[in-house]
Amino acid sequence: MTFRLSYGDCDPAGIVYYANYQRWMERTHTEWWFLQGLRFDDLPSRLGVAVVTRAASAEYERTITLFDQIECRLYATSVGRTSFTMRGDFIREDGTRASTATLTLVCVDPHMPEKAVPVPPPMRRLLRSGSAGR
Amino acid sequence: MTFRLSYGDCDPAGIVYYANYQRWMERTHTEWWFLQGLRFDDLPSRLGVAVVTRAASAEYERTITLFDQIECRLYATSVGRTSFTMRGDFIREDGTRASTATLTLVCVDPHMPEKAVPVPPPMRRLLRSGSAGR
Amino acid sequence: MTFRLSYGDCDPAGIVYYANYQRWMERTHTEWWFLQGLRFDDLPSRLGVAVVTRAASAEYERTITLFDQIECRLYATSVGRTSFTMRGDFIREDGTRASTATLTLVCVDPHMPEKAVPVPPPMRRLLRSGSAGR
Amino acid sequence: MTFRLSYGDCDPAGIVYYANYQRWMERTHTEWWFLQGLRFDDLPSRLGVAVVTRAASAEYERTITLFDQIECRLYATSVGRTSFTMRGDFIREDGTRASTATLTLVCVDPHMPEKAVPVPPPMRRLLRSGSAGR
Repeated sequence: MTFRLSYGDCDPAGIVYYANYQRWMERTHTEWWFLQGLRFDDLPSRLGVAVVTRAASAEYERTITLFDQIECRLYATSVGRTSFTMRGDFIREDGTRASTATLTLVCVDPHMPEKAVPVPPPMRRLLRSGSAGR
Repeated sequence: MTFRLSYGDCDPAGIVYYANYQRWMERTHTEWWFLQGLRFDDLPSRLGVAVVTRAASAEYERTITLFDQIECRLYATSVGRTSFTMRGDFIREDGTRASTATLTLVCVDPHMPEKAVPVPPPMRRLLRSGSAGR
Repeated sequence: MTFRLSYGDCDPAGIVYYANYQRWMERTHTEWWFLQGLRFDDLPSRLGVAVVTRAASAEYERTITLFDQIECRLYATSVGRTSFTMRGDFIREDGTRASTATLTLVCVDPHMPEKAVPVPPPMRRLLRSGSAGR
Repeated sequence: MTFRLSYGDCDPAGIVYYANYQRWMERTHTEWWFLQGLRFDDLPSRLGVAVVTRAASAEYERTITLFDQIECRLYATSVGRTSFTMRGDFIREDGTRASTATLTLVCVDPHMPEKAVPVPPPMRRLLRSGSAGR
């Protein structure tokens, strides 16, 4: 997904407000699942799991400013038994990387969110298909 | 409620991002109801209504900037049969008003959100008590 | 512009958080100016004015929920001597209107933000061209 | 700092939207510096440095929901030559931890944001004073 920075995305230093990368990361990965036919809010009824965020991180290398465009390139970097990690590379218009973010998600029992359960095969297939990468 | 402006609240012009007033307005009025003992998410089970936002407005008179404090003073300005309007005056540290916002909320049937229903007496009493004002 | 609702856009009632309409409105109109060749942050150096938000309003008619798409159709509804008003109609995928928002902006002296100045002719032309409408 | 979750802080799953922890983290640490007498926007003129965010991370252990209160306890966990890391523990009302976030900040030349410079002694003293901890 591509985002153009608006006034609401920047801070008084004139640059992107850093927490926005996590918003874009969430937006890009839920959109990716959506385009693959899996709505995250349907997972409990369709696949018997819910997905919760376990960890998030970001490293900021270069900054971006008002009206710049940033492209989020999404990759599934690891798929474990009950969790998986996605990485987003945020690329500026000049082709350099502004930031990298990761998101680790865990599949849980929708009725007992503390109980991790295996990543359902359809999700595992999609993650492995490389469709999340480019 | 009082808010101090942080980096995430300001825009590249160095001043408050205007849509934040609506966030503070929502925060202040749901907090006020909460402190009166009425959680908005409990209204369906306790009073048989849900509350939806019908209209919002704001006028911006003076601006505020990073690290300024702003106080939201909340008033119930009108109470109709099925709806009510709250006003928030946002006062700067120098005592002048930065902005005024209004919020018009409607009570609806929780199962049919298009159907307006009367404001329940307990809510009406609270709104009229003047507790919402100062 | 078209927006698909993500988790970060919705509230615990499962519907769009109402203040987001003002964010989309800002995003759509600054993008429109940008696409016409006028960056808002360049206005002081290019046209000798700054633009500040004087008033905003919104009416909510129907709601939208997670993964719905909403299209913002932007119109310049009035152009005065020192200010102008833009309206955004937010249209759901079924063609019905979810909400209408307005934004009144004032041109001011960049060095004296309290002093309103005339809308510069290039901005006036763009607003009148109907390019803001559809 | 203590935050009570409002509608705008939660997502359609009814729980806190995860990116908010980064907003609270930024808010808490800039407020801490502010209360110590150091405004971050004054650093270039007062100490000849600017501070930029290099990395951020968060781990989510337990969730919080609408109207819950969360307390951010801030600690300076490491102070290097040009950078320092702050950790925020987010504690629920029942005393358990909801989440831990870290923020790594780098001091840079205000005129060459790519050039790291030493953490100025006054900042170093404050970080070491333990005032950031509790």
